[in-house]
Amino acid sequence: MKNVAVVLCGSGYKDGSEIRESVGVLWALSQHPVSVQCFAPDAPQHDVVNCLSGRAAEGEKRNMLVEAARIARGQVLPLDQLAKMTGNYDGIFLPGGFGVAKNLCSFAFNGHKGTVRPELQKILDLMFQAGKPIGAVCIAPALIALAFKGKGLELTLGSDGDAAKEIEKLGHRHIVCRANEYHLDPRHRVASTPAYMIDAAPLNEIFEGIQKMVAAVLQ
Amino acid sequence: MKNVAVVLCGSGYKDGSEIRESVGVLWALSQHPVSVQCFAPDAPQHDVVNCLSGRAAEGEKRNMLVEAARIARGQVLPLDQLAKMTGNYDGIFLPGGFGVAKNLCSFAFNGHKGTVRPELQKILDLMFQAGKPIGAVCIAPALIALAFKGKGLELTLGSDGDAAKEIEKLGHRHIVCRANEYHLDPRHRVASTPAYMIDAAPLNEIFEGIQKMVAAVLQ
Repeated sequence: MKNVAVVLCGSGYKDGSEIRESVGVLWALSQHPVSVQCFAPDAPQHDVVNCLSGRAAEGEKRNMLVEAARIARGQVLPLDQLAKMTGNYDGIFLPGGFGVAKNLCSFAFNGHKGTVRPELQKILDLMFQAGKPIGAVCIAPALIALAFKGKGLELTLGSDGDAAKEIEKLGHRHIVCRANEYHLDPRHRVASTPAYMIDAAPLNEIFEGIQKMVAAVLQ
Repeated sequence: MKNVAVVLCGSGYKDGSEIRESVGVLWALSQHPVSVQCFAPDAPQHDVVNCLSGRAAEGEKRNMLVEAARIARGQVLPLDQLAKMTGNYDGIFLPGGFGVAKNLCSFAFNGHKGTVRPELQKILDLMFQAGKPIGAVCIAPALIALAFKGKGLELTLGSDGDAAKEIEKLGHRHIVCRANEYHLDPRHRVASTPAYMIDAAPLNEIFEGIQKMVAAVLQ
């Protein structure tokens, strides 16, 4: 049985992992004979956002690993453990959420000049060099674009022109996709699907895109 | 188009709504031509639990409406608003999670002697009297059992003997179901599915049970 890693960074679309996309990835994976392990950094979130008002919850602190356990039902390990045993895993998935662009990389602040969290950069480098597949949802392809600057990947961020421009500045090609679609870059073994980059998409279409992307990665 | 309400109470399986079940209900609803509105009490959670360690996060306070917004992507209204406009809704769904048994009723503390949060009891009474369907996931059927004590409903809590005994003490009949199944009580228009009452069930089977339950309620 193959082992796959799912990287989370909290629980919530404005400050952590997008909950629905994370559940969608876990649901899609449950349809295949793979062993799944969630990981998240054992570190404070960049911020805590009141997801009702949209405003920062000043002074509030939350830990990415502890919050990710809400999605993972307690079954989540520190990301630095994955960095120590990347060789045991056959593929990696990154759900989206604004937290990905604030916690796992600095795309939210620096766009194409951003960097990836060091232990995750190391994990992705090892995966990529070993030809292992990577699946990215929503804004997570922007993190992949930062991690593999200049490598000429094909990635989708739906039809978001501004975000697409940033990844093209990194030497990649942006492919327009709908929510129920995905794009596979077969040469680099990277698949991506837009999910809530298309904000108004119905949830069943988002899940369809994730399901197709996951199936493509596992092939 | 029909209007349906989904009642949440936070975001997390140990102190709020079970995230995966809530997303499963929203995903299943997105497959039908219905208008969906989430609601949650604008009140503090009974407790905050560290979902990694399983221990209470002493001193931490979270609001059910604010946390539910993480699942609802900001689109959630206070539950007392639903109590004022129950007539506008054609059906109601309750995902599970330990928070349901602590926040929306007192089943976690008092079993068959528990009571339902007053505004939710009022909403359920109005729905029930009007012959509108109710869908309940995981432990939420125990709340339905409390709300309609002595009415002889047919409900499933999977195969959990202890919880089943409590609802039988309330004058209902417990039906054993697997995760990918549901039970419809056609006389009372109440449908239920076990979900994570069967802790080891794969997520795709849980979603299958939720999908079937939602389809039955909407018929």
